[in-house]
Amino acid sequence: MLILIALGGNALLKRGEPVTTAAQWSNIRSATRAIASVAGDHQLVITHGNGPQAGLLALQAAAYKEAEPYTLDIIGAATAGMIGYMIEQELGNFLGYDVPIATMLTRVCVDADDPAFRNPTKFVGPVYDAIGAQELAREKGWTFKKDNENWRRVVPSPEPQSIVWHRPIRWLVSQKALLICAGGGGIPVIRHAEDGRLEGVEAVIDKDRTSSLLAQELSADLFVIATDVDGVYDSFGTPQQRLITNTTPQELGDGSYSSGSMGPKVDAASWFVRQTGKRAVIGSLNEIENIICGRSGTSIEANPKGP
Amino acid sequence: MLILIALGGNALLKRGEPVTTAAQWSNIRSATRAIASVAGDHQLVITHGNGPQAGLLALQAAAYKEAEPYTLDIIGAATAGMIGYMIEQELGNFLGYDVPIATMLTRVCVDADDPAFRNPTKFVGPVYDAIGAQELAREKGWTFKKDNENWRRVVPSPEPQSIVWHRPIRWLVSQKALLICAGGGGIPVIRHAEDGRLEGVEAVIDKDRTSSLLAQELSADLFVIATDVDGVYDSFGTPQQRLITNTTPQELGDGSYSSGSMGPKVDAASWFVRQTGKRAVIGSLNEIENIICGRSGTSIEANPKGP
Repeated sequence: MLILIALGGNALLKRGEPVTTAAQWSNIRSATRAIASVAGDHQLVITHGNGPQAGLLALQAAAYKEAEPYTLDIIGAATAGMIGYMIEQELGNFLGYDVPIATMLTRVCVDADDPAFRNPTKFVGPVYDAIGAQELAREKGWTFKKDNENWRRVVPSPEPQSIVWHRPIRWLVSQKALLICAGGGGIPVIRHAEDGRLEGVEAVIDKDRTSSLLAQELSADLFVIATDVDGVYDSFGTPQQRLITNTTPQELGDGSYSSGSMGPKVDAASWFVRQTGKRAVIGSLNEIENIICGRSGTSIEANPKGP
Repeated sequence: MLILIALGGNALLKRGEPVTTAAQWSNIRSATRAIASVAGDHQLVITHGNGPQAGLLALQAAAYKEAEPYTLDIIGAATAGMIGYMIEQELGNFLGYDVPIATMLTRVCVDADDPAFRNPTKFVGPVYDAIGAQELAREKGWTFKKDNENWRRVVPSPEPQSIVWHRPIRWLVSQKALLICAGGGGIPVIRHAEDGRLEGVEAVIDKDRTSSLLAQELSADLFVIATDVDGVYDSFGTPQQRLITNTTPQELGDGSYSSGSMGPKVDAASWFVRQTGKRAVIGSLNEIENIICGRSGTSIEANPKGP
C-alpha cells in the first residue's frame, strides 16, 4: 500500500518549545521511530511542515543588517534541506540500509491570480513596533498586520495547483525508495504564461494542502495527516466533545470540528477523499500502526464502513 | 555520455561579490545557460559549492543571540536546499519540461579518525577579536585560528569515504533525469562502529573531492570541474605561464601548478582519472561545450592523446 504521511510541525517541535538543534533531533527521533514501525509493510512518502525553522531563519536574517534577507521561496528550500536531512538520517538509523531513502526538493506551482496574493494572512518572522513595520513596508514592499500588541509581516498562502516534477518522485517510489519531499508545503513558484518560465514567489503554501495534492497525483492508497492529537472532535472543548472515528467529507463539511488548526487539515483530507475515493486519516503519529489498520484517528471515506 | 559537472563557488557568486539574492539568480542563470547547452546530448549530474551561502547563514546565526546557531551538517543541508532549488529552477527554465530535473540531498560518510578532526583548517563564519574568540571557544568548544588581524572559527575538512545512498541517484540517472546533488561537498556524517548509526559532524568536505568520489561511484564517463579560469597553468603568475591542455595525473603530481585554490581541484580530478581510467577536465564553465569535446580546459587522462 502506498501511504503519504504528512508530519505536522508539532511532530518536529512541540508547541512552544524553543528551536534548538537538540530538541529537533529528539522530536524527529520519536517521529521517525513511529514511521519506521510501518515502513517494512508499506511504501511511504513523507512530507513535513517547517514553521518554527523558517521562523528562526527569518529572525536570524532580520538580526544581521549587512545582507538582505532571503525571499520565502529560498527559505522554504533551505528548510526542506535541513529538516529533510534530519528525518532522512533518523529514519535510516531505524531502518538500516536495505530501504533506500531519498530527500527531494519539491516546487509547487501556484496561480499568480490567486486571491491570496491580494490578501496576505500568514504571519512570518519577527514582531515589530509600528514605526519599524512602516519602514520595512516602505523599503521592501512587505505587508504588515497586527499580531496582538505588535506588528508582523503577513504573506500570502495560495492554493497549490500542481507539483513540479512528480515523475522523479514516482520513479523513486516504484523502486521502493522511501521518499521525503514537499517540505514546508513545497517551494512556491508561479508559471509565466508568455514563456512558461517558473519563478519563485513570496508565499507559504499550506503543507496539508500540498500533501493532499501530492497524494492525489501519486495515486496514494492512504493519506495520513499526523499530528499530536488523536483525531477530529465533535463539539471540541465542550463537555460533550466526542472523537469522530468514521466519517465522510459530506458530514465533515457540516461539522463543528474546526478548532484553530484542525480546519485546514479536515479540508485537505476531505479533498483527497473526494478526488480519489480513497481513505484519509487525521490522527496521532504515535498511533500510526493503528491508524493504518483503521483502529485510531478520524478516518474519512467516501462510503464509510459502519461505526 | 554520463558527465558529472562540479560547479565552483565562483560560478554561483563572483569573487568578492556580496551574497544578494539578485546576484545569485543572475550568476546561476549564466551557469545554467552553459549547462543547458550540453544537456540535450549528454546525461548530466551537477554538484556545487556553498561557501558564500553557508558563510552568510553563519553570520546571520551569530547576529541573533536568542537561539544557538545550527551545526555545520544542518547548515550544509540548508544550503544544498537553497542553491539546489535555484539551479533546478533556472535549468528547468532553459530546458523546458521534457528533461526531468531532481535535486537530492546527499550525505557523505567521513572517518571519525580522519586526522583533519585533530587539525581543523577551514575558516567559517564571522571574524572575532581575541576575547570574543576565547569566549566562544570556551562556550561551544570551537577552534579558532588567526585570519589576518582577526580570529575566525576553523573546522575540519575530512576526506569523503562514501556517498550514503547512491542507489536513488543511479535510478534517477537511469531514467534520464538531470540530477543536482552533493551540494557543498555533501552533508558530513560519521558511522558509529558499534551500531552502524549515522550522525552529523561539524565539518566541511571539499566539494571537488566529494564530486570526484561521486563521479567514481556513478561510473561517470567524464568528470568536469568547472570554474572561472580556463584551466591549469604551468608557472602560473610568471611571464612563462602556459595553459596545460593535455596531461596525466603523473605529470600533474610533479607540476608547479598549485596556486591557492587550484591544488585541490587538480588532486580531485587526478584521483578520478587514476581510479577509473576515464578523463577529467578542469576548465571554464562558459567553455563547457568545448571542454566536453576536448577543445578547452586542462584535460587529464591516464594516456593522453598527443598535443
